Amino acid sequence: MSLNAADIYKDLWTIRKNSPLVHNITNYVVMNNTANALLALGASPVMAHAVEEVEDMVNIASALVINIGTLSPKWIEAMFKAAKAAKAKGIPIVLDPVGVGATSYRTDTARDLVQEATPAIIRGNGSEIMALSQTDATTKGVDSTSGSDQALESAGNLNKAFNSVVCITGEIDYILSRDGVIEVKNGHEMMPKVTGLGCTATAICGAFTAVNPDYQKAAAHAMAIMGIAGEVAAKEAKGPGTLQLHFIDALYRISEKEIEDHLKA
Amino acid sequence: MSLNAADIYKDLWTIRKNSPLVHNITNYVVMNNTANALLALGASPVMAHAVEEVEDMVNIASALVINIGTLSPKWIEAMFKAAKAAKAKGIPIVLDPVGVGATSYRTDTARDLVQEATPAIIRGNGSEIMALSQTDATTKGVDSTSGSDQALESAGNLNKAFNSVVCITGEIDYILSRDGVIEVKNGHEMMPKVTGLGCTATAICGAFTAVNPDYQKAAAHAMAIMGIAGEVAAKEAKGPGTLQLHFIDALYRISEKEIEDHLKA
Amino acid sequence: MSLNAADIYKDLWTIRKNSPLVHNITNYVVMNNTANALLALGASPVMAHAVEEVEDMVNIASALVINIGTLSPKWIEAMFKAAKAAKAKGIPIVLDPVGVGATSYRTDTARDLVQEATPAIIRGNGSEIMALSQTDATTKGVDSTSGSDQALESAGNLNKAFNSVVCITGEIDYILSRDGVIEVKNGHEMMPKVTGLGCTATAICGAFTAVNPDYQKAAAHAMAIMGIAGEVAAKEAKGPGTLQLHFIDALYRISEKEIEDHLKA
Repeated sequence: MSLNAADIYKDLWTIRKNSPLVHNITNYVVMNNTANALLALGASPVMAHAVEEVEDMVNIASALVINIGTLSPKWIEAMFKAAKAAKAKGIPIVLDPVGVGATSYRTDTARDLVQEATPAIIRGNGSEIMALSQTDATTKGVDSTSGSDQALESAGNLNKAFNSVVCITGEIDYILSRDGVIEVKNGHEMMPKVTGLGCTATAICGAFTAVNPDYQKAAAHAMAIMGIAGEVAAKEAKGPGTLQLHFIDALYRISEKEIEDHLKA
Repeated sequence: MSLNAADIYKDLWTIRKNSPLVHNITNYVVMNNTANALLALGASPVMAHAVEEVEDMVNIASALVINIGTLSPKWIEAMFKAAKAAKAKGIPIVLDPVGVGATSYRTDTARDLVQEATPAIIRGNGSEIMALSQTDATTKGVDSTSGSDQALESAGNLNKAFNSVVCITGEIDYILSRDGVIEVKNGHEMMPKVTGLGCTATAICGAFTAVNPDYQKAAAHAMAIMGIAGEVAAKEAKGPGTLQLHFIDALYRISEKEIEDHLKA
Repeated sequence: MSLNAADIYKDLWTIRKNSPLVHNITNYVVMNNTANALLALGASPVMAHAVEEVEDMVNIASALVINIGTLSPKWIEAMFKAAKAAKAKGIPIVLDPVGVGATSYRTDTARDLVQEATPAIIRGNGSEIMALSQTDATTKGVDSTSGSDQALESAGNLNKAFNSVVCITGEIDYILSRDGVIEVKNGHEMMPKVTGLGCTATAICGAFTAVNPDYQKAAAHAMAIMGIAGEVAAKEAKGPGTLQLHFIDALYRISEKEIEDHLKA
């Protein structure tokens, strides 16, 4: 399965025009980057985690992004409550199981969330997707110790069990559904040196699900935009510090021509 | 009512000289930006939200900034406790009702805070000021869907009821008190694409209230500095990513001459 | 006591090669910067604060960094639990007593943590080290009001009582153990204008303790790298905004030659 630049740009254009509200329940480390990436893309981000307001926020949102990067009990309660409201309303849920496998607390929470939320998309690195699917996998904190290709079987199992699109990011991104696998080869080797770019990828998936009901395409388009923005940014960056900022600039400015010129999918 | 560059610079100079401690109870998304903006301006920021310490922190602070961007019950409790201590001590309180109108939790909290804290300054976008004042207004998340001019009547009502200076930010900033309205026309169209610049504006109001007891002037001076720093930054920025950093640099370096050259008020 | 560039580079090289997992329980303001600094250095950062998972996370970590910048009861509970697990496992603990002296809540927590955790390294500015050691010291929020040299006696007392290496940062950094004091004179005057660079210094100490069991050398090497990266970054920066990003870039790229050329210790 392959992608084309016109379809990707059409989604991007729709995000820029409609500015869909993406409700994020995410971790403390990346909130600022995530919000900036969504704004630069053209979406309208909101962060809200209180049990007291997540249902109201879901009610005005077009997509819900749940990220377990810095968990605690009240936040978990809010994640489940928001997921339930999103399912009732029929808006897509995108899950980022950050660091699943590193502690049983994360593993249990991530697996319960998959079961209850049946996400439109699950996005993780190779280690995370393997740990989410397998009973015996472990990860080293939040950085991947496995290549994205090693996680394809796990991704298939998750997809079979929950029908979620599974998006494994790495040097090659694999976006898997029952219809097959899309590969996206864009990106730059310095990107994993910026904290939270994986979380940004997940949030951007959220924005694309808000405008494209084909969630596999939505995820693949999101990964193409991420990777291309990363490549454009890397040309000007001298390290991961400046890369992060140029990446936001690139997201903001990215054109159909740039997508055409850079797309490797 | 109009502003002059010398008065603005005098306040800025006093902030740089005295480095007033500004105590922020703010949201997770913007804490880092807010702290950096206050440091760059010349103030001394502190973030503290525990019920156990907010009174002690208020006791050594020159201004209190309350921002409801990512609420939860304990934080709300701390906001009210800190506000009470600030009123008892007689230091100004600046309120940012982020996303008021988006959920009843935010709306109720913001209205109760206005009532209890009677803030020196309330700063919000058009939608927020309308939602804070009116019973039937709604907002879309945290981004404004109304122009700042549409909120002038609401601002007037808030000012009548609570005597707070109301600062509506947008393409034109309106700073309203019983003495009239000051308009500030500085700023750049890319600024709303950087997350939390509204929150930064509120925090900078806090720093100016610490050196200028005329809170309408304090707010107007803060908005002029914000807008001018944004214009200076935009000249070098290629998108909202680099804008954010150049904005901090501009705050740090801004001179009386630059204020004179750029001021549109 | 003095340092040499080859020893510093050897530690840095080992961090880059082994990518040790550094578990941070730190404050909301700096989490993103801290994670980015550790990644740029070559380490693998993880942030986790839930009482439910800190022991599991310590079990896969090579060092534990505790930073009290934005305290609340649950976080304090997690800090003690993690410290206990780290001591049992035998991995080094690095403590940053942010703002100790500003409120009794911080002072009490920091002193109890020193007692219970007996940190490998305590890193603070002059005011903080004095407030941690003395019963009558106060600080102004989180910024230092004392020179680092004024805190040497306090540092000596802390070292006598708890055997921790004490690292006082300022214009000159003093790293004190029972074997004497190492001075590091690198750095740039704009660095205190970037929020959380002190917290970054503490986290980087954590990474160096993971590869060098001589904790005084580890802390001194960390301070040299911090200061040199700051000097390199300052050459390109136009203010604290861009300094922050160039600092991350510099950490990522720093070479043995640059260490040799810049080291002032």
